[in-house]
Amino acid sequence: MSSDKKISSAVIRRLPRYYRYLGEIKESGIQRISSNELSNRMKVTASQIRQDLNNFGGFGQQGYGYNVEYLYEEIGKILGIDKTHSMVIVGAGNLGQAIVNSEDFAKRGFIIRGVFDNNKELDGRKIGEHQIMMSDRLPQFIKDENIEILAITVPKDAAREVARVAVEAGIKAIWNFAHTDINVPDNIVVENVHLSESLMRLSYNMANHANQ
Amino acid sequence: MSSDKKISSAVIRRLPRYYRYLGEIKESGIQRISSNELSNRMKVTASQIRQDLNNFGGFGQQGYGYNVEYLYEEIGKILGIDKTHSMVIVGAGNLGQAIVNSEDFAKRGFIIRGVFDNNKELDGRKIGEHQIMMSDRLPQFIKDENIEILAITVPKDAAREVARVAVEAGIKAIWNFAHTDINVPDNIVVENVHLSESLMRLSYNMANHANQ
Repeated sequence: MSSDKKISSAVIRRLPRYYRYLGEIKESGIQRISSNELSNRMKVTASQIRQDLNNFGGFGQQGYGYNVEYLYEEIGKILGIDKTHSMVIVGAGNLGQAIVNSEDFAKRGFIIRGVFDNNKELDGRKIGEHQIMMSDRLPQFIKDENIEILAITVPKDAAREVARVAVEAGIKAIWNFAHTDINVPDNIVVENVHLSESLMRLSYNMANHANQ
Repeated sequence: MSSDKKISSAVIRRLPRYYRYLGEIKESGIQRISSNELSNRMKVTASQIRQDLNNFGGFGQQGYGYNVEYLYEEIGKILGIDKTHSMVIVGAGNLGQAIVNSEDFAKRGFIIRGVFDNNKELDGRKIGEHQIMMSDRLPQFIKDENIEILAITVPKDAAREVARVAVEAGIKAIWNFAHTDINVPDNIVVENVHLSESLMRLSYNMANHANQ
C-alpha cells in the first residue's frame, strides 16, 4: 500500500469495525457481498463504505461486490494484524486481569508475554497461565523478549514512570488505560482508553438526546 | 446553550479532555489561563482550543484568558455531568469489577446502584459494597430505582439480550463493552468501548509509524 496518501483518522477509526463484520460474515460462510448488503448490516451508507474502502485502492468489482475473504485479509494487513505482536501488561488489578483473561486479543495476534505489578503480595501469583512478575524486571524483559506493546493498567500517578522506563527499554507502542496523557517521543505509538471520558461522551449524548 | 447548532463529534470527543485538564489546573490553584498556556499543556494548538470552545459561545476574554473554574463548570454542564446519573453493571467478571472498584466514575457523578450477573455461584457475593444480584431482577430494578445507564460487561453473545431487556424496562443509555453492536431504538444512547478495536488502531499506527 502506498504511504503517500494520508488516511484520515476517521477512516482508521472505522476499519476495525469493517474487519469485525467481515470476519463474522466470513465465518457464516458468505463469500461475496455487495456494498449495499454490507451497508444494511453495518448501518453505514453504501457510499460511505465504497468511499472508505477506496482509500486502499478499493477491493470491489462492479456487479460482483466484494470478495469477503480477500477484503478481510487485506484490511487485516492494513491494520497490521496479519502478523503477531508481543505485549506485556503492567498492573495486575481487575483491568489487567480482564485483559489477560480475554481471548479476543490473542485471537487478533496480540500475544501477552508477561504481566507485571509492583505489589509484592502478588509476586508469583498466577493470572491464567501467567505468573505475575515484579515491575523492576520490566526493562530487561522488554529487551530480552523483544516486546513491542506495553499495556498500562496502573493508576495514573504511576503510569508515566512505567511508560518512561518501558520507552527507555525499547517499547514501540503503549496501550494506556490510565486516566492521564502519556508523553513519549513521537516515534512511540500511544493509544488511550480513557473510560471516564467515554462515560462523559455518553452523558453528553444523553443530555442532548441524540444517538451518535 | 442553543441546541440549533450541531456540534461535530470530533469536538465532543475532545471535550472530556478539556474537562480533565481544567480540573487538574483548578486543583493546582490556578484561576485563569490563556489559550496559549492551555495549548502548551494539552499539546493542542491554541487556535484549535479557541475554535473548540467557540462552539459553546466561547468563555474567554481577550487579554484575560479563561476563568478556569467557570470554564470547568460550563464544560461539565455541557457534558451533562453537573448532575448525577444512576448506573447498573451487568457482568460481574474482571471488567465489571474494575468498573465497580474505580473511583473515577463516582467522582464524575456516575453512581453505581447495582451489579448483576447470571452466574448463580456469584449470587449475593460482594464486590466492594455491592452485593451481586441475579440478572432476572434487572428489569424490575431499573424501573424501581429509575436507573438511567446500563453498563454491559458480559460476553458478546449475551449482550444483545441484556440490552433488549433493559431497554424494555426503560433504560436511557448503554455503555457497551461487549464486542458487538447493540441495536436499540434511536432514542437510546449507546457508547461503545471496543477494546480489540482500540488495539487494532494501535497496531495500524505501529505499522504506519505514525503517532496519532
